[in-house]
Amino acid sequence: MNDILQRLTQILEARKQAAPDGSYVAKLFSKGEDAILKKVGEEATEVVLAAKNGDKAHLVHETADLWFHCMVLLAQHGLSADDVLNELARREGMSGIAEKNSRQKG
Amino acid sequence: MNDILQRLTQILEARKQAAPDGSYVAKLFSKGEDAILKKVGEEATEVVLAAKNGDKAHLVHETADLWFHCMVLLAQHGLSADDVLNELARREGMSGIAEKNSRQKG
Amino acid sequence: MNDILQRLTQILEARKQAAPDGSYVAKLFSKGEDAILKKVGEEATEVVLAAKNGDKAHLVHETADLWFHCMVLLAQHGLSADDVLNELARREGMSGIAEKNSRQKG
Amino acid sequence: MNDILQRLTQILEARKQAAPDGSYVAKLFSKGEDAILKKVGEEATEVVLAAKNGDKAHLVHETADLWFHCMVLLAQHGLSADDVLNELARREGMSGIAEKNSRQKG
Repeated sequence: MNDILQRLTQILEARKQAAPDGSYVAKLFSKGEDAILKKVGEEATEVVLAAKNGDKAHLVHETADLWFHCMVLLAQHGLSADDVLNELARREGMSGIAEKNSRQKG
Repeated sequence: MNDILQRLTQILEARKQAAPDGSYVAKLFSKGEDAILKKVGEEATEVVLAAKNGDKAHLVHETADLWFHCMVLLAQHGLSADDVLNELARREGMSGIAEKNSRQKG
Repeated sequence: MNDILQRLTQILEARKQAAPDGSYVAKLFSKGEDAILKKVGEEATEVVLAAKNGDKAHLVHETADLWFHCMVLLAQHGLSADDVLNELARREGMSGIAEKNSRQKG
Repeated sequence: MNDILQRLTQILEARKQAAPDGSYVAKLFSKGEDAILKKVGEEATEVVLAAKNGDKAHLVHETADLWFHCMVLLAQHGLSADDVLNELARREGMSGIAEKNSRQKG
């Protein structure tokens, strides 16, 4: 399951070359960056609403929508989910080091 | 690198039990859901700004912030990144089937 | 021109009673609060994009959209633009007093 | 009360020239457009949260914050609340004409 972000990255890269009428994503790429950014803003609001409504299935659904449109945005900039995962890993490593240091101080 | 989302999930679960002054995340959990949702809204706006500024490093940084705070929100609801990855995989599977069917028609 | 917010308030109140198929606003009221809140989130993102694009006419257009949907939200809660204007006037009065005091100190 | 938006416009124009340490708004202008846009995004999320929490006083407070920061943004672009009110009046006039025409058809 874990490699779904990489599989999606490959699909998004293929869609960037595709005809605009080929798929939802190809259409979105052809509309340009602002159309993608509007979706990011919309989906963030929908995550907030799903959380406030306490609807767990909907929260998962809307977070998936938000992350997916972030991946479309990343692809549009020649980036991918891997860049985001690397950044998160880098921070977690630093925080691991910070934790180690604070334990050595104790 | 790919299991960073699972490692972060474990850390977030541990932080849910921790004293509110122990870390940024423990503090955020103790402030409650609205504080987490404000961060989701803020980080979404920062993703939009980083993209419009064409700053790739910043876009990765802000998307990492957004996904991280989504993971805090998921943890607060007893959910995790795996639920989101499963949902994305489910959709990708469905879209794979749709594509197969359309190819068989052709 | 200045009483446009009050004229819009009257129109919105009338639309709250109207059949859902009567107008854009009557339809929005009938869909319920989350539909209105999605529009507030969407229009806020569009304001950000218009500003980043440096398009003044579009910025005015999108800010008008944002304020209008805020007024629909206020009406849905039995409130109006006057409540917001009163709050802004209250703050400005307080800031006026603060400024006066600081001048008297000087 | 109604001229509060015009009074605020005058104050904002004065703050644009002021030293960055003089006031909250002067500081915000000096930080530049992205800082203002972050506030617009933040306050929009807070409006959504206040509405979902059904807290009317808080909804008025957050909508005032949102409109105020929109006015800071307008001022930064050499625009003002009057431009937004004119746009709303123009639309209302058009909708009035549309309504008239539909009645004449009836």
